[in-house]
Amino acid sequence: MKAVRLHAYHQQPVLEEVPEPKVTGPLDVVVKIGGAGVCRTDLHIVEGQWAEKSGVALPYTIGHENAGWVHEVGSAVTNVAVGDTVILHPTPTCGLCHACRAGNDMHCENNAFPGIDTDGGMAEYLLTSARACIKLDADTRPEDVAALADAGITAYHAVRKAVPLLPPGTVCVVNGAGGLGHIGIQSLRALTATTVVVVDRNVDALKLAADLGADHTVVADGTHVDAVLDLTGGHGAEVVLDFVAEQGAQQDAFAMTRRAGSHFVIGYGSNIDIPTIDIISTERNIVGNLVGTYNDLVELMVLAQAGKVTLHTRQYPLDAALDALADLDAGRVRGRAILVP
Amino acid sequence: MKAVRLHAYHQQPVLEEVPEPKVTGPLDVVVKIGGAGVCRTDLHIVEGQWAEKSGVALPYTIGHENAGWVHEVGSAVTNVAVGDTVILHPTPTCGLCHACRAGNDMHCENNAFPGIDTDGGMAEYLLTSARACIKLDADTRPEDVAALADAGITAYHAVRKAVPLLPPGTVCVVNGAGGLGHIGIQSLRALTATTVVVVDRNVDALKLAADLGADHTVVADGTHVDAVLDLTGGHGAEVVLDFVAEQGAQQDAFAMTRRAGSHFVIGYGSNIDIPTIDIISTERNIVGNLVGTYNDLVELMVLAQAGKVTLHTRQYPLDAALDALADLDAGRVRGRAILVP
Amino acid sequence: MKAVRLHAYHQQPVLEEVPEPKVTGPLDVVVKIGGAGVCRTDLHIVEGQWAEKSGVALPYTIGHENAGWVHEVGSAVTNVAVGDTVILHPTPTCGLCHACRAGNDMHCENNAFPGIDTDGGMAEYLLTSARACIKLDADTRPEDVAALADAGITAYHAVRKAVPLLPPGTVCVVNGAGGLGHIGIQSLRALTATTVVVVDRNVDALKLAADLGADHTVVADGTHVDAVLDLTGGHGAEVVLDFVAEQGAQQDAFAMTRRAGSHFVIGYGSNIDIPTIDIISTERNIVGNLVGTYNDLVELMVLAQAGKVTLHTRQYPLDAALDALADLDAGRVRGRAILVP
Amino acid sequence: MKAVRLHAYHQQPVLEEVPEPKVTGPLDVVVKIGGAGVCRTDLHIVEGQWAEKSGVALPYTIGHENAGWVHEVGSAVTNVAVGDTVILHPTPTCGLCHACRAGNDMHCENNAFPGIDTDGGMAEYLLTSARACIKLDADTRPEDVAALADAGITAYHAVRKAVPLLPPGTVCVVNGAGGLGHIGIQSLRALTATTVVVVDRNVDALKLAADLGADHTVVADGTHVDAVLDLTGGHGAEVVLDFVAEQGAQQDAFAMTRRAGSHFVIGYGSNIDIPTIDIISTERNIVGNLVGTYNDLVELMVLAQAGKVTLHTRQYPLDAALDALADLDAGRVRGRAILVP
Repeated sequence: MKAVRLHAYHQQPVLEEVPEPKVTGPLDVVVKIGGAGVCRTDLHIVEGQWAEKSGVALPYTIGHENAGWVHEVGSAVTNVAVGDTVILHPTPTCGLCHACRAGNDMHCENNAFPGIDTDGGMAEYLLTSARACIKLDADTRPEDVAALADAGITAYHAVRKAVPLLPPGTVCVVNGAGGLGHIGIQSLRALTATTVVVVDRNVDALKLAADLGADHTVVADGTHVDAVLDLTGGHGAEVVLDFVAEQGAQQDAFAMTRRAGSHFVIGYGSNIDIPTIDIISTERNIVGNLVGTYNDLVELMVLAQAGKVTLHTRQYPLDAALDALADLDAGRVRGRAILVP
Repeated sequence: MKAVRLHAYHQQPVLEEVPEPKVTGPLDVVVKIGGAGVCRTDLHIVEGQWAEKSGVALPYTIGHENAGWVHEVGSAVTNVAVGDTVILHPTPTCGLCHACRAGNDMHCENNAFPGIDTDGGMAEYLLTSARACIKLDADTRPEDVAALADAGITAYHAVRKAVPLLPPGTVCVVNGAGGLGHIGIQSLRALTATTVVVVDRNVDALKLAADLGADHTVVADGTHVDAVLDLTGGHGAEVVLDFVAEQGAQQDAFAMTRRAGSHFVIGYGSNIDIPTIDIISTERNIVGNLVGTYNDLVELMVLAQAGKVTLHTRQYPLDAALDALADLDAGRVRGRAILVP
Repeated sequence: MKAVRLHAYHQQPVLEEVPEPKVTGPLDVVVKIGGAGVCRTDLHIVEGQWAEKSGVALPYTIGHENAGWVHEVGSAVTNVAVGDTVILHPTPTCGLCHACRAGNDMHCENNAFPGIDTDGGMAEYLLTSARACIKLDADTRPEDVAALADAGITAYHAVRKAVPLLPPGTVCVVNGAGGLGHIGIQSLRALTATTVVVVDRNVDALKLAADLGADHTVVADGTHVDAVLDLTGGHGAEVVLDFVAEQGAQQDAFAMTRRAGSHFVIGYGSNIDIPTIDIISTERNIVGNLVGTYNDLVELMVLAQAGKVTLHTRQYPLDAALDALADLDAGRVRGRAILVP
Repeated sequence: MKAVRLHAYHQQPVLEEVPEPKVTGPLDVVVKIGGAGVCRTDLHIVEGQWAEKSGVALPYTIGHENAGWVHEVGSAVTNVAVGDTVILHPTPTCGLCHACRAGNDMHCENNAFPGIDTDGGMAEYLLTSARACIKLDADTRPEDVAALADAGITAYHAVRKAVPLLPPGTVCVVNGAGGLGHIGIQSLRALTATTVVVVDRNVDALKLAADLGADHTVVADGTHVDAVLDLTGGHGAEVVLDFVAEQGAQQDAFAMTRRAGSHFVIGYGSNIDIPTIDIISTERNIVGNLVGTYNDLVELMVLAQAGKVTLHTRQYPLDAALDALADLDAGRVRGRAILVP
């Protein structure tokens, strides 16, 4: 089958032929890919940011945002059958460790993360496990929902954690209105009555944000921290969802939080550097976020099927994977790029 | 009356005569000081760290940790009477703003912070308000409990926030076993069954920690991060209560947290500087802490009266305030230094 | 001034002349009533259900749902001034007890409840306190918002407590779509993406419910428990908000909850009688609800001013108070009846 | 093998020979029983209280509180091996339904409950699944810990849910100091600093309660509700853990709760019958409780291994199972009766 594989850091991945994956364990599932999302993390992988953390052996297939149809199942799989349409939780988990038993799939002690530390879904077929599969209506098109499998779950998970902090009368800043941010805005609209302020450098992204329900949009032109402070009576926002967190955006995001507020780090790339006296004198928090739970993705699919979260995607054939990566890197993608094998 | 007053940053405070404060508003209370704690923040004030944040006009009286007896009350005060023994919440609050109406006294929009931004308690008398007073048993000696008014409430507030993260089987690191830390250890013992690991440079402080119920003690000699990782199977601790947060301790504290763990910043002095990829790839949090609520202090007084939290103090006459500050700066104080007018 | 006063239980109240209330304490506020809501509790008071609980001395003025303009203030009042438009939290509180310090205004140990245990607002003027006043925009008409002061806050408080139980994919039953229920439906729509099922005997009430965003409506005709079970795959609802809780509705409401679900009792009138084995074998809860906090009402006013909660009211002159009570008792009021002096 | 089997409701179970269970599925585990607890629920099963709810086909083997050694494992079992000492979570679960994915094992949509709705552990061997097994230290004796598998987890689960309601200064009533209650008292001592008041008819049970750390004990002699009100300044307790909930104890338990308090129903047998006006006028709650999660049992084993929860048991040979049931029914068992095959 065809697969997009990384052979060396700081070099472009290569589209090449590899053998199809096969079921070996009783809980294995092989999925025929219908849609595979292209994510900023794929760029960061190529840049080597994940080399040490993932420890993956090169070459391997990237692609950690996948949906498709069940192609083959192990002997003990009971929750899906061959032919089912599925979206895949990004981390197949053991189901037995302390984190799994508490529902915290992203902290499974024995998990794999296809596309990060093992072969991923920018290919025709993907090996995963029963616990990663969420069965969808038969008429769902995988390419229409694939972006929910990583961009979606990550944005939704952060919003879900922020909901208790966002009763009516509060302000939530969405820092970055790209692939994740535009799902974050809709999730906030579905789950809260908070005032949503969206910050982005790109005016087209802000137009999309306004269409999706943002109450205010702010161009990130260097005056944006002051603009957010002005919008909040000088106080800042109860929550800043920082979908960027690189090149200074992470410092600005913290500066936009109010007393007792929280800076949710979701994007990444640079260091955050804050005087501890600023943290304690205002009792502010910096909150890490990593994909989400299986049930987070189930809930997000409920919102999607109800039309409360809609995706803005641009589809590319699998053969054009490198074009999609280049477009993303150059800021030419509104919403999310999806590869269709 | 005598008061310890700061005339200029980077110079020692001066013990001098000033007029006694008087009640003017209907909710004012003047307290005759029975005990006033000496805190590392007093050193930081002299160093100018709070100059810009507090905006206080010099000279002024320091001392933000106070207990004593009610000396005079305004016409509308109903909760205390002249002669009552009281401990004082550090921030007299308005009772009417959104934060006050939610019980978050430390975030009152109209609060004063005696000893930080207005005249404090290293003096014979202090002006405060009805809402700051907690009435104690008549036979309580103010000098025995004063340290709970700031060191105590701050340590307790952080522990109280951490309790939901610390079920049996978890590990909590107490970073720094000084004035706040030794109350933190006892609060953890009273409210949780977590494994308590205490880290400090000073072996005497660690001996006290062990006596107070620490399960493990670790000398902060440069190998302490590794020692904590070894004690936790390589994972780190669910919670690190960082009572130091300066001179590199804050970086070590973050490094001691495990996946999905939280670094509670309580001390301060240096910057914390963390790659955002480390925050998101493990979903860790940095949590600010600032004194506590009025009810936090009420609860802590319940623990103190039940003998579940005991203070280790060293008393100085008010005239020896500068000696107390010098001893604290030189690391010669175990537990907390208390001035007694 | 004119006031609607109860002279004896089981007899109709009387509209009569009484002296205007005056400010005596420093935190007192006298409000000129602009709108006073008529509530099923007023009927229950006349029926004597509250006689023992309130211990109020007859005669007294009923009316516990009030908005208007500040007419006179005590010497220490800082948050409102004469002429301000205000809505009144139903229970003036002391601000000093443990419950007040935690923000739980409805559990103040020293509160009064005008209209329940002291003179209320079905009159031209009402005596309350600074802590009960929420200042509104000058152009707000009190009669348009008065229903939020008790019906609104009570429905909103229950919804606010239920929000963590109602992520996407859950079902919430609103049992009773009258004065409180129609605000509950809108609050659910504003704060959750749960599926809202409304049950009522009256088809007009159900039509209003559908207009306000109910996903399903069910006529309470004896088959309604089965209808709710059918709508939920036989499981029942995660939450039932029971705005009726009398004449058997409370038993039906419990029967509509699913395993691990919660029956929120908000209305009242009859006993709830459940086998304990049914409670433990499914781990279900029965949750009490009583008006709400000051901040609950502040949040609800944010929703109201944003147009996310609109009231359906029918106005009566104060002189027609008895007609309003009779209409409510006979089921002739859609939404809420409001007296306008 | 020998097994204690129920052939008809309202008749005593019979000790008889039945075939040993065998592994058939890949995740099956057969455990050689080392200790099987005897529970009041076994009496309730014989009385027919569970006949309709469980729908179990008679005859079947009772016994839902089990520990032992792994005897045989299915092909896909990875978390335990033959010979391991294990305690068993009472409900083998599917690991795939929404409740399982949230960690709520007791609400698994596909669970079995050995001893309730399928063959249990009053026998030499028990068929369970990998997900029910918690591996223990090799030197743990199953008969010493078996009582934690149901009595323990149930008491601990209720305490764990109550912890956020029980900060210092609160009161928790333990209603019933038998098999569950004595674990509840110790769990409260380990996880809170609340004041523990224990109510029981039996003075020996109260002596044990005092030894385990109860602050106050009250004989249930008809004056006990008043006694609890006296101990709490007339207010009642923030939480009542009702381990009895039959024969009027459930009404007394509710009467002992304070305003905004919660009555945790854990035992069962009679109806609870409360005026809804009492529920709403004080905002009190009735909270169901059902065994607990897998992680609850893991945490409880941590407390047990640290010596913070110790069991008071009386051992009987499996052949004397009927004697044990009779002793329990007659109130002759302090702590918990354990069958040892």
